[in-house]
Amino acid sequence: MDTGRAPVTVVGLGQMGSALATTLVETGHPVTAWNRSAGRARAVADRGVRVAETPREAITASRLVVVCLRDYAAVHAVLDPVVDALAGRTLVNLTSGSPEQARETATWAATHGVDYLDGAIMTTPPGVGSPEVMFLFAGAEAAFTTHRPTLAALGDPLHLGTDPGLASLYDVALLGLMWSTMTGWLHGTALVGAERTPATAFTPVALRWLATVGTFLTRYAGQVDAGRYPGDDATVDIQIAAIEHLIHAAADRGVDNALPELLRDMMRKAEAGGHGADSYASLITVLRPSAGAR
Amino acid sequence: MDTGRAPVTVVGLGQMGSALATTLVETGHPVTAWNRSAGRARAVADRGVRVAETPREAITASRLVVVCLRDYAAVHAVLDPVVDALAGRTLVNLTSGSPEQARETATWAATHGVDYLDGAIMTTPPGVGSPEVMFLFAGAEAAFTTHRPTLAALGDPLHLGTDPGLASLYDVALLGLMWSTMTGWLHGTALVGAERTPATAFTPVALRWLATVGTFLTRYAGQVDAGRYPGDDATVDIQIAAIEHLIHAAADRGVDNALPELLRDMMRKAEAGGHGADSYASLITVLRPSAGAR
Ligand SMILES: [Ca+2]
Ligand SMILES: [Ca+2]
Repeated sequence: MDTGRAPVTVVGLGQMGSALATTLVETGHPVTAWNRSAGRARAVADRGVRVAETPREAITASRLVVVCLRDYAAVHAVLDPVVDALAGRTLVNLTSGSPEQARETATWAATHGVDYLDGAIMTTPPGVGSPEVMFLFAGAEAAFTTHRPTLAALGDPLHLGTDPGLASLYDVALLGLMWSTMTGWLHGTALVGAERTPATAFTPVALRWLATVGTFLTRYAGQVDAGRYPGDDATVDIQIAAIEHLIHAAADRGVDNALPELLRDMMRKAEAGGHGADSYASLITVLRPSAGAR
Repeated sequence: MDTGRAPVTVVGLGQMGSALATTLVETGHPVTAWNRSAGRARAVADRGVRVAETPREAITASRLVVVCLRDYAAVHAVLDPVVDALAGRTLVNLTSGSPEQARETATWAATHGVDYLDGAIMTTPPGVGSPEVMFLFAGAEAAFTTHRPTLAALGDPLHLGTDPGLASLYDVALLGLMWSTMTGWLHGTALVGAERTPATAFTPVALRWLATVGTFLTRYAGQVDAGRYPGDDATVDIQIAAIEHLIHAAADRGVDNALPELLRDMMRKAEAGGHGADSYASLITVLRPSAGAR
């Protein structure tokens, strides 16, 4: 079947790699895949993915090679021996790793004439293929533009910049936001749960509130960039008083308070730094490396 | 001018009380207000609010009396001497306080024949009047139903239950979620900022990601209520490995890591409790009072 869609090679058929390969096949792309072990390969073969015998055979099937392996060491172990076959193609690396590993791999790719994009997948495998899910990319902009239509089959592709480390940096930064948000939600869930409110009753209200919090973040982003934090809406001092109410209510109900106590301590540091009458955005001064550090 | 809208009394003209009074006047409600000092009263009088000389004069002007003062002590100081005038009316208390204070005030109101709703305003004063802003209420359900059309002029009114402490409890629980989310966002902002990414570039991506995180919360709410935390999508063990990447990347860039280190420690506690292969929702077991506590 020739759908007119660009052929894609997928290297690595773990849970995520398999989701990538089958999603591409289902959207009409001819997909050739390779995996070290045969088990997963059989499952995707049943769904229309051509399974190659060797990495070289897989790579030479497509201009676009997507790799999703356990770590960057595995990427080099598989691709170093066949880098000559990658020359002139685009390598999209969706393996999880550090910004430094992404940059090192981009340099290696450039040395061998390979166009390189480093990426991060902002979902779990079942979310692959949803148009609202973000796929973050960084590196060669021309390669991104060329292959954007294909990458859009996987989710919403965003190019963050030419520094190939940016996708990994955003990835961990966003995961940190996720863990903070999920733990704050769990704390609130435990608190209202102490008064027999189910999590499923609290959560729709929490989700609406998160949308409001999002409007605060947008306002505070401008303040962070400007380095000025006018406390027109709610000052750090007022929020220190308010978080004491939370800590008191949670302590009364036996809920673990390590998280709000840490947040209060950070607010107090901002206050001690002269930001008591400023907005919450001034806590960036507590988090940021001090001048001269680094 | 008779708009046919219900008269409302507003007691307390701080920043928030003034926003309530002027929003109600602007939507066509006859508003009578009282404030201890005259300064703010003049400002709202200029916008069409009738200013009463005494709390009694204000209260007797409307079936619905909204109070928004500094704290519950101020509520009692103002209303105790005129509670006879409140009898047969509905008192909506939007003052910030604890669930215990709300319950105590509800009992006091019931003793004196006053219908009582305790409320929480999930915005800052400039947000009053936006239809998407949540106003949380708890207590007398019939009073809520009667006055819902008036309360809807201020935002979206939600009735949480007949326990009058619920609005305050949700209030602090939601603020805790806000502080956790804002601090997680600031940590990510500091991290990408160390590579010269502006907060205003990171934040739109963070907001899209928060919408995805919201879908996780909905799934995890069901797990919390069921007391089972299947780790199909991402296990605690996997997330402990992932947060080490965040901590490493942030440490390399001089970003304060107290928050992600605390989150990692909580994940480790969940793992030590046998939840390594479960989802992040299993961290509720770390936060919740242990059986026998309280
Ligand atoms: Ca990556
Ligand atoms: Ca309240």
